[in-house]
Amino acid sequence: MSPTVPLTQVTFTGLPGIPHVQPGDDLAVLIYASLRRAGLTLETGDIVVITSKLVSKAEGRFVNLNTVQPSARACRVAEIVRKDPRMVELILRESTAISRMRQDVLIVRHRLGFTLANAGIDHSNVGRESDDWVLLLPEDPDRSARHIRQRLAELTGVAPGVVISDSHGRPFRVGTVGVAIGLAGFPAVWDKRGQRDLYGRELRVTVTGLGDELAAAAGLITGQGAEGLPVVLVRGLQVPAGEGCAADLIRPEALDLYADHQETGG
Amino acid sequence: MSPTVPLTQVTFTGLPGIPHVQPGDDLAVLIYASLRRAGLTLETGDIVVITSKLVSKAEGRFVNLNTVQPSARACRVAEIVRKDPRMVELILRESTAISRMRQDVLIVRHRLGFTLANAGIDHSNVGRESDDWVLLLPEDPDRSARHIRQRLAELTGVAPGVVISDSHGRPFRVGTVGVAIGLAGFPAVWDKRGQRDLYGRELRVTVTGLGDELAAAAGLITGQGAEGLPVVLVRGLQVPAGEGCAADLIRPEALDLYADHQETGG
Repeated sequence: MSPTVPLTQVTFTGLPGIPHVQPGDDLAVLIYASLRRAGLTLETGDIVVITSKLVSKAEGRFVNLNTVQPSARACRVAEIVRKDPRMVELILRESTAISRMRQDVLIVRHRLGFTLANAGIDHSNVGRESDDWVLLLPEDPDRSARHIRQRLAELTGVAPGVVISDSHGRPFRVGTVGVAIGLAGFPAVWDKRGQRDLYGRELRVTVTGLGDELAAAAGLITGQGAEGLPVVLVRGLQVPAGEGCAADLIRPEALDLYADHQETGG
Repeated sequence: MSPTVPLTQVTFTGLPGIPHVQPGDDLAVLIYASLRRAGLTLETGDIVVITSKLVSKAEGRFVNLNTVQPSARACRVAEIVRKDPRMVELILRESTAISRMRQDVLIVRHRLGFTLANAGIDHSNVGRESDDWVLLLPEDPDRSARHIRQRLAELTGVAPGVVISDSHGRPFRVGTVGVAIGLAGFPAVWDKRGQRDLYGRELRVTVTGLGDELAAAAGLITGQGAEGLPVVLVRGLQVPAGEGCAADLIRPEALDLYADHQETGG
């Protein structure tokens, strides 16, 4: 049977052979080399999803816990959540507020605006010689996304959309899913207000988290095995025109009905 | 250039020509017909993502608001949230608790366990002659998923994974994303505890919301235009062995740090 209709198809490809990244590495060069290895050429409309861990490593966001002096506040919180006080100190330094805490759980509002566990500080896959090293999120992931997009344009002649993804837990639901913490080259939020439904009725649920849906989709591939595929090429997706950033996906606190904080005193 | 390495690739295809569905329609028959039109044959490992709206229509989950008598409690809530008291009555009937409410917003814990706006009751794309008709979620979407999986196996000889997806808003973040509210044929949650990272260190963030990542990914296609592509075929994804259901994605209330309810009195 051969198809009689054009198909709407989106393909997610894990880029092969991305090496272990070192501080200072140019990710665009590594992505370009991988594309060539895979026999792929960037096309207009392509989107590249990159795990935040890869970006953090290239940006040298490592911290050795032995260099961290926990404050009194960090020690108080560490006792509640039963975590290493040095790790808690780093989490608090990266955050503007504690959202929820309980034994083994410390959910904060990150200085970048995201609400997430442990301020996104990562202890696995850090790739340093000892367990004392941890990895912070990129300093400004939206800026990182814009930079990678521009570098890829210089190398390939095509400026792809770029998403920097992280895995976050959620209230109400089990398991982490990919979300966009950095984004460039297309709108992070797809606003369909005013569009009509199949029957001519105005659409109600009209703002979709496009950047997050892309990050979640790429998570299906980056999450395979031990994170050996940290870059995913997305091809075939029609996205609306415009420029956005991942900060657009952060709900303003005043409009967030779940934003009540638990503070610990300063 | 031809590729020198095998690629990890996952393809999402919007199935063409799924017609407007009527109560009693056999969705598996419609999906099978669309696959044939597209020149596609189900393969082992394929997953079919179907919007909950399509399933609800096939199951006849329509309600005419003119048949709904709002209770005193519904009227009180309707005054706070400024919604049609008949709609509020339906939302409360579908729910076990109110999670948050405010003008224009009514977030509830659905009797199925999901925390979501308006109990998932839909007013757009209902396709009835008047605006008085609304559409409830499927009665038991996990059961629906198992049934569609079995019917597809009978028709095609291959039992695909099945996800029934809905679009939910989230705390902290802007925009809706696809989530799994029904699932059959594979694990909804991917538990990687005990696996090692690239450097031999045990993985920490080890439970991913596989069913939700699939629903979010499919949302990139079903969300195009006016929901003209309500069924998405996913091919190429390696999922772990086992059987799951979307209920596995619901965090038990005792483990949900955001599950505090606002009640209105009975």
